Amino acid sequence: MMASPPGGRGSNMTEKAFQDFYPDDLSYCYGCGRLNEDGLQLKSYWDGDETVAVFHPRPSHMAIPGYVYGGLIASLIDCHGTGTAAAAAYREAGREMDTEPAFRFVTASLQVDYLRPTPLGPVLEVRGRVEEIGQRKVIVSATVSAEGEVCARGRIVAVQMPEHMMP
Amino acid sequence: MMASPPGGRGSNMTEKAFQDFYPDDLSYCYGCGRLNEDGLQLKSYWDGDETVAVFHPRPSHMAIPGYVYGGLIASLIDCHGTGTAAAAAYREAGREMDTEPAFRFVTASLQVDYLRPTPLGPVLEVRGRVEEIGQRKVIVSATVSAEGEVCARGRIVAVQMPEHMMP
Repeated sequence: MMASPPGGRGSNMTEKAFQDFYPDDLSYCYGCGRLNEDGLQLKSYWDGDETVAVFHPRPSHMAIPGYVYGGLIASLIDCHGTGTAAAAAYREAGREMDTEPAFRFVTASLQVDYLRPTPLGPVLEVRGRVEEIGQRKVIVSATVSAEGEVCARGRIVAVQMPEHMMP
Repeated sequence: MMASPPGGRGSNMTEKAFQDFYPDDLSYCYGCGRLNEDGLQLKSYWDGDETVAVFHPRPSHMAIPGYVYGGLIASLIDCHGTGTAAAAAYREAGREMDTEPAFRFVTASLQVDYLRPTPLGPVLEVRGRVEEIGQRKVIVSATVSAEGEVCARGRIVAVQMPEHMMP
């Protein structure tokens, strides 16, 4: 299993997670905010043209004994997807993630197919791929795997956060 | 806002939640298991031909300040959907939920459209409707509303839990 942050293997993974570039007041998301102490604090990175995050579910993240509950998998795809969308928007613009104006995306729609029960115990690997990138909309597909087996496949449509949502 | 359990208004809501009929060893789901102390403990009820659940998000269930994170909304639709699927299967069979053999459903796929930002603070109401019911598969559509406004719309395909997943 991959250590966190993932790196090595001669890949060009970034060392700082996408979410670590979010400004403080946008860093309280339950799924991926580094300042949400109760949350999942998901961290996403580039791995070549794909993005990757690893997450170790808590014992309470159970569906039925032995398996991860579907809502967690949806959350991982959601937050990894919006993070990927932001990172892709910067990459597309040829800009570093610490430059202004900030790109920040929210989810317009989320689709998850649960292909097989996800075992509870192993670290999960979430992989994202940018399917389509526009000025305000990015479509990201993702997989969630355990021990090398894809357990769920998803897709999100991410849109730039409307100005009126800014804290 | 509706009290929990919802009732009154001359409706035919059941008094015991669907999830309260799940056997103990299937009652640890993070989203809806009554025995998962860290979980959301969602409770779903009939309200005529629809099903309803109310949920009060925790302050930490934030996306950005003031709004609920999408993963929670996906979880509510997921667990309300599988609960609705089970209740509908019993109703279709003309059986009470405390009779054997037990119907228990898992999610094959989940779709959520986030129509508007969901405010963090108010109680959320999740409403389900059975779109299609077969022997092993039930399709449920759902809405999540805050203060009478629909914030998200979803749909799950629920399938009967495979025997090999039984604890």
